[in-house]
Amino acid sequence: MAYFDNAATTFPKPECVYDFMNTFYRECGGNAGRGSHKFSIGAGKMVSETRNRLKQLLHCENKQIIFTSSATIALNMILQGFLDGKKTEGANVYISPFEHNAVTRILHHYEKIGKISVRLLAIKVNLTYDFEKIQTQFTKETPDLVVVSHASNVIGLISPVEKLCAMAKKYKAVTVIDMAQTAGLVDINVGLETIDFAVFAGHKTLYGPTGISGFAMKPDFDLKPVLFGGTGFESANQDMPKDIPQRYEMGTLNIAGIAGLYASLGWILENGVGTLWEKEQEHRKELLDILSSYDFIRILGVGEKNDYVGIVSCVIDGLPSDTAASVFAEKNIAVRSGLQCAPLAHKTLGTFPSGTVRFSCNAFTGDGDFVQLSQTLEFIKKNI
Amino acid sequence: MAYFDNAATTFPKPECVYDFMNTFYRECGGNAGRGSHKFSIGAGKMVSETRNRLKQLLHCENKQIIFTSSATIALNMILQGFLDGKKTEGANVYISPFEHNAVTRILHHYEKIGKISVRLLAIKVNLTYDFEKIQTQFTKETPDLVVVSHASNVIGLISPVEKLCAMAKKYKAVTVIDMAQTAGLVDINVGLETIDFAVFAGHKTLYGPTGISGFAMKPDFDLKPVLFGGTGFESANQDMPKDIPQRYEMGTLNIAGIAGLYASLGWILENGVGTLWEKEQEHRKELLDILSSYDFIRILGVGEKNDYVGIVSCVIDGLPSDTAASVFAEKNIAVRSGLQCAPLAHKTLGTFPSGTVRFSCNAFTGDGDFVQLSQTLEFIKKNI
Repeated sequence: MAYFDNAATTFPKPECVYDFMNTFYRECGGNAGRGSHKFSIGAGKMVSETRNRLKQLLHCENKQIIFTSSATIALNMILQGFLDGKKTEGANVYISPFEHNAVTRILHHYEKIGKISVRLLAIKVNLTYDFEKIQTQFTKETPDLVVVSHASNVIGLISPVEKLCAMAKKYKAVTVIDMAQTAGLVDINVGLETIDFAVFAGHKTLYGPTGISGFAMKPDFDLKPVLFGGTGFESANQDMPKDIPQRYEMGTLNIAGIAGLYASLGWILENGVGTLWEKEQEHRKELLDILSSYDFIRILGVGEKNDYVGIVSCVIDGLPSDTAASVFAEKNIAVRSGLQCAPLAHKTLGTFPSGTVRFSCNAFTGDGDFVQLSQTLEFIKKNI
Repeated sequence: MAYFDNAATTFPKPECVYDFMNTFYRECGGNAGRGSHKFSIGAGKMVSETRNRLKQLLHCENKQIIFTSSATIALNMILQGFLDGKKTEGANVYISPFEHNAVTRILHHYEKIGKISVRLLAIKVNLTYDFEKIQTQFTKETPDLVVVSHASNVIGLISPVEKLCAMAKKYKAVTVIDMAQTAGLVDINVGLETIDFAVFAGHKTLYGPTGISGFAMKPDFDLKPVLFGGTGFESANQDMPKDIPQRYEMGTLNIAGIAGLYASLGWILENGVGTLWEKEQEHRKELLDILSSYDFIRILGVGEKNDYVGIVSCVIDGLPSDTAASVFAEKNIAVRSGLQCAPLAHKTLGTFPSGTVRFSCNAFTGDGDFVQLSQTLEFIKKNI
């Protein structure tokens, strides 16, 4: 299969990920932080080393790493925890016009109960941020919370999160960046004082397995727990413990998943984020070259001055996106159609509600994949 | 290592679990329910078949299976969803006196904000339920919600959940049973009309990996979503979709984990729950025989007329539980000490706050484990 669905989940994973998950879980299948025996201690050390690798990769020794099962749960814990903890009503929440349902559905809930107003950060026609307008927005309606996905899961466009967070911090807003499509791929300094929370998805750009994600947070941030349970720590206390990460990690951790992430992080650190970034950029270029050579394909949201991860969305004349995805599937090519869980991004791009066909590559995308894609596009050209 | 920490997580897993997880994730690492390509459809079918196997095992074709990352998250979704959805304040929540922090910490939060009163179901001195007293309790303070763990994670005592749920249903209470220590081991009919929710933990008695758990629920139960996000389904809708399971499954499912659970469920169904139950009962008997042959060991909460899963808690004279666990760890025996995340159970048993040493077996516990245990107890007898 020619796999162009890496924005959903990267595939394949580096060989060491499959190997280490398998070996570690077979040989050391304990429950971390819940006992003093060899397995449990072995699991505990591996979990702790995985946190260290994440801190190294994201340049945030000054932050704490919290593990969750998915980036979506991480966003729920952060956004709900902050908004539930806020005593005054009517918070101003600014988001990028490219946010995923993982953000917008949470905020929609708080909007419905009248607790927040959601506002979109201003952008220009070329999809770059309009900092001047944003300045005016912030002056008129002071931001309490700013949530920006570091790269759009629809068109791959990278946001200037450092600048946006710095602007927001001048108003003491809480800042959240969603790095689901960028952690381990786009090298930024998550350790910045202006970034309060950064969410990562283990199974996407971090090349780990499903079921393990999380976030980096400032250790002194008073985030209200919204999920409760046993922590193997301060068990007599019926409140969640004050200590981090235990305060936000209830129930048994996904040891098998963390083992996979441990291995994938080792692989990324060994290869270097820069090398992986360059590979993916080459693949993105090849993808763009192929797609743009057909006049019945309209590529969306690509501006020359912008930076992008390896995600390209397009509309195929005469082929609705779901039909197109089926044609590709028949030809054994994996793409994603429709709204990609990001209706807001499609409204911004003018492709709502029909959506797009999304192609996404990774460091492993190879010549064979591109040949298969070209052949299928030739087939579409002749037959449809 | 002699592994007596199966109540934390079963180890080893059946060989097919490691194998299938590894193979499936290498060969078919797609994202379920998010695309039309071969990988995604393959993952989707496997996920759907895993739900079917769970329904078969728990005898609940009439219920829906929701996947979560842990039993703790499942309990949060159920208890918070029900309590947040309740319009009137002051609900009466009855729980067993053996509940885990996964239940009590959630309820403590609602108690603190004045939304509920938590009451303990009455038991007798021999730890059996006092149905007469419970009847009186229910008459005086009508139950709105009843939460009972099917087996105590501290002493393995099995609760008569069918009878308790039937009693609760006469008052139209919502019933939740926590089968973290019993699903796939104690054969009950989860399909009963009197059971609204049943929680399972994939990595415990179901012999699956960490990171995959969930619950069975009545499809027509109007449970308020408490977590929000993308579902790959009805993406334009900013509310969580009405359809189940999507309404309660946000973000990417743990495909690698579900693959492991799929394999372990196949293994359980093939062996038969009865066979696994009998094996574990034999192992429990052997454990009890060994432990009770030392007069410095006091076994807790074992009554002749009660039923137990393979969990035995004890106090060792002159050895605080944490010290004892270290001694066992040195001798390469895995046990669990302290409060086992269940301070309430220890208060009930009179072992709070010092806790116990907990031994827990599974179907794989073998002669070698018991020999090693006996040798270590001889060592303790002579040296401590």
